[in-house]
Amino acid sequence: MNPSGNSRDSTSSAPFHMIDLIRKKRDGAALDAREIEFVVSGAASGAIPLEQLAAWLMAAWIRGLTLDETRALTMAMRDSGEKFSPARLGKTAVDKHSSGGVGDKTSFLVAPLAAACGVVVPMISGRALGHTGGTLDKLEAIPGYRTALSLAEFEAVIQKCGCSIVGQTPALVPADRALYALRDRTGTVENPGLICASILSKKLAAGLDALVLDVKTGSGAFLRSEKDCEFLAALMVATAGAAGTRTAALLTDMGQPLGRAAGNWIELVEAVELLRGTRPAEGPESNADLRELSLILAGWMIHLGSQADTPESGYERAETALMNGSALRIFLEMVDAQGGDARVFEDADAFHRPGATEIFEAWESGYIAEMDTTALGWAVQRTGAGREQAGEPVDPHAGILFHARRGAEVERGQPLATLYATSAARLEEPRALLRKAILISKSPPGAAVALVSRIFTRENAEKFLQDAVR
Amino acid sequence: MNPSGNSRDSTSSAPFHMIDLIRKKRDGAALDAREIEFVVSGAASGAIPLEQLAAWLMAAWIRGLTLDETRALTMAMRDSGEKFSPARLGKTAVDKHSSGGVGDKTSFLVAPLAAACGVVVPMISGRALGHTGGTLDKLEAIPGYRTALSLAEFEAVIQKCGCSIVGQTPALVPADRALYALRDRTGTVENPGLICASILSKKLAAGLDALVLDVKTGSGAFLRSEKDCEFLAALMVATAGAAGTRTAALLTDMGQPLGRAAGNWIELVEAVELLRGTRPAEGPESNADLRELSLILAGWMIHLGSQADTPESGYERAETALMNGSALRIFLEMVDAQGGDARVFEDADAFHRPGATEIFEAWESGYIAEMDTTALGWAVQRTGAGREQAGEPVDPHAGILFHARRGAEVERGQPLATLYATSAARLEEPRALLRKAILISKSPPGAAVALVSRIFTRENAEKFLQDAVR
Repeated sequence: MNPSGNSRDSTSSAPFHMIDLIRKKRDGAALDAREIEFVVSGAASGAIPLEQLAAWLMAAWIRGLTLDETRALTMAMRDSGEKFSPARLGKTAVDKHSSGGVGDKTSFLVAPLAAACGVVVPMISGRALGHTGGTLDKLEAIPGYRTALSLAEFEAVIQKCGCSIVGQTPALVPADRALYALRDRTGTVENPGLICASILSKKLAAGLDALVLDVKTGSGAFLRSEKDCEFLAALMVATAGAAGTRTAALLTDMGQPLGRAAGNWIELVEAVELLRGTRPAEGPESNADLRELSLILAGWMIHLGSQADTPESGYERAETALMNGSALRIFLEMVDAQGGDARVFEDADAFHRPGATEIFEAWESGYIAEMDTTALGWAVQRTGAGREQAGEPVDPHAGILFHARRGAEVERGQPLATLYATSAARLEEPRALLRKAILISKSPPGAAVALVSRIFTRENAEKFLQDAVR
Repeated sequence: MNPSGNSRDSTSSAPFHMIDLIRKKRDGAALDAREIEFVVSGAASGAIPLEQLAAWLMAAWIRGLTLDETRALTMAMRDSGEKFSPARLGKTAVDKHSSGGVGDKTSFLVAPLAAACGVVVPMISGRALGHTGGTLDKLEAIPGYRTALSLAEFEAVIQKCGCSIVGQTPALVPADRALYALRDRTGTVENPGLICASILSKKLAAGLDALVLDVKTGSGAFLRSEKDCEFLAALMVATAGAAGTRTAALLTDMGQPLGRAAGNWIELVEAVELLRGTRPAEGPESNADLRELSLILAGWMIHLGSQADTPESGYERAETALMNGSALRIFLEMVDAQGGDARVFEDADAFHRPGATEIFEAWESGYIAEMDTTALGWAVQRTGAGREQAGEPVDPHAGILFHARRGAEVERGQPLATLYATSAARLEEPRALLRKAILISKSPPGAAVALVSRIFTRENAEKFLQDAVR
């Protein structure tokens, strides 16, 4: 309504007026790369007021972002702050990202496995979010382990060990920091383009040559519908590929916790046991899924990092590194290089001091037919392993050890899980959540769910997106 | 994702969580009255952060508000602050609202006309907005005229004169004050439900028994499409009716400025000339449309205020009050009661001291085929009659006097308008806007546009909405 448009805008010296970009997205049009860059730099610098960003995010959530917009948003966010440059390390830089899960401790396995096979792994990880655990929270269960390294320290650890797992620095991808907090408050989290840009901008700011994405499906996944998971996976593969990073995405089952342990310290212990070359547990307590998925993901990392011709031969190299102890050695070196006391793994049980412990038993006989893994994740967080408010400390000793998997036949009174809580009072909510989350039925459930249901590489991802958009 | 929902919300002691109401609207569901009241009271008190309100507004803009949501929003906003109660005046309280226009000075005519015919008119008006003028800015061209009265002073003026025209007090409809400023910055202005609630909440807070709505159509209207205008008109009539105020809406032509003058002082002068009973100008400078529309609107006010059986007999009563000078007397009494120096109308030309004056001539011969009245409105504002930024002063002497109407045959060099600007520098932009806004064609334009194209009362408004929603 205003011919010059400048009387309503707080950023009138800029090349665009935010109000115009809000209206454009509101009316369903696509922003070009320069317009997206304006929004992102205004979000990072604080030049665009939160209420204008919130309106734009809601318009983007409802109208959707095109593939070009998603790519532009990802790249602008990646470039919004300082970046890590692994080129000086003289090796191919590869990372893995999981879309969040319950009991997902594959990072502790794949980082040293891939590093043992000739790539470097500069892994920038996150904290517990919602019902899912956080890699940094788990690592901080190790006394002294520092997750807040400078980029120079990060580089030195990678130089020495081949991998490092740290937290995001404030200067890295400041646009995501600003936008993520705002999305959380404004109901604009669950959108494929916004999720893609948030995840990839952080990963790509680490200067990766290749990236393996583990997109969770099933009852514990952030996106519940298989179709949404496929779209997000294909979108991330195509977007990262267009940004110059060889990328594959695996859709993997999160219909039950991965492995046996979900919490902080107990997850590290499970990972280190497998890194010792110990055969996985069998029967209803099997954690073969964790070993298998870690080797598959590491195989893809090694393959995309040009250290194996196929993901299958990458898997074989990873399995060798697991069995010969070289990956374990790298992991313990990394813990030591980041200030952690690796001796705690020597007597893991002695170190484990939960405030309260309780066995959760089957309330009737039958088969474990279903697990609402999101509810199980909340149960884990409410033992004290997660936080109610951002910034709160987590209890390293809290968590849940599961003793029965989907499909297992159980007797009434048989232990289904061991709960480790900060205090006896914090056993109550997890107990109630478990009771609702686990379905025991009289007849055995149908066929087992595949661990990996679909794989996207750049070629089939781009075709999938063309078909999906049509 | 959070089972209790309270870790992400700033208002966790409240009956609802704003994040849930944002998601609900985002996903296209309708909020119930209690949920709407929560949003409105949080907007008025500041308890809900601006970015959450902005996200909710954008979701409401895109998904739309249902009729029930619109009614709940209107009533909650009406009740968000203090209210005026005209019941003590012992007369029916009636008001008129126009959806904004160029040269629309009907308020100065209809308020005293209706008051002269036995109703009271507690008129709470606004300021220049975008390309449209503001009733308060125009009245403040009168030396001493106070638009900021307390509710007690407002009541006293109405008691004495039968009408009063004032500005909104800070305590009246604080929710609209907060939401309107936010909508302006977040691209969420042009939505029928939000517009309806904003307009009606302010009007209904004045405790009206009846209300006449003048919804502008054509090139100068805020809503350009005839269909959108009809929908908004019907929506306002049904919503105000449901709130207990007898309401009618007239769709009227804003395809050219109303009357001859557009600005501040010069509009008052044109209104007072007609209140003197002077016959309207004829030919290309005719302002018969202004006289006619004012009498029609006043006729409806008198009718809905139970002082005439039909709008037509109300028109006749209003015309009598115009011709016998009783409306003029009321207007001048009101000016005096609000501190204004009514003597300035005795020699209007002597009082008029624009910084620069220029005649704008026809650049070729032909017929005035079209007028882009929105552009003409911007030209008026840019002479100095309007503001670039909220809070700036306006020039009471600036404006444009139009000498030719749509359909007029004009000779090259014939004056089309007289520009009155704050300074010679402020003639340039209006001149360029006029040159683009007026279309001179070789052949005469088609049939004249009706001054009033459609009328809604509660019955046909509700039927219209049922058909529109279907």
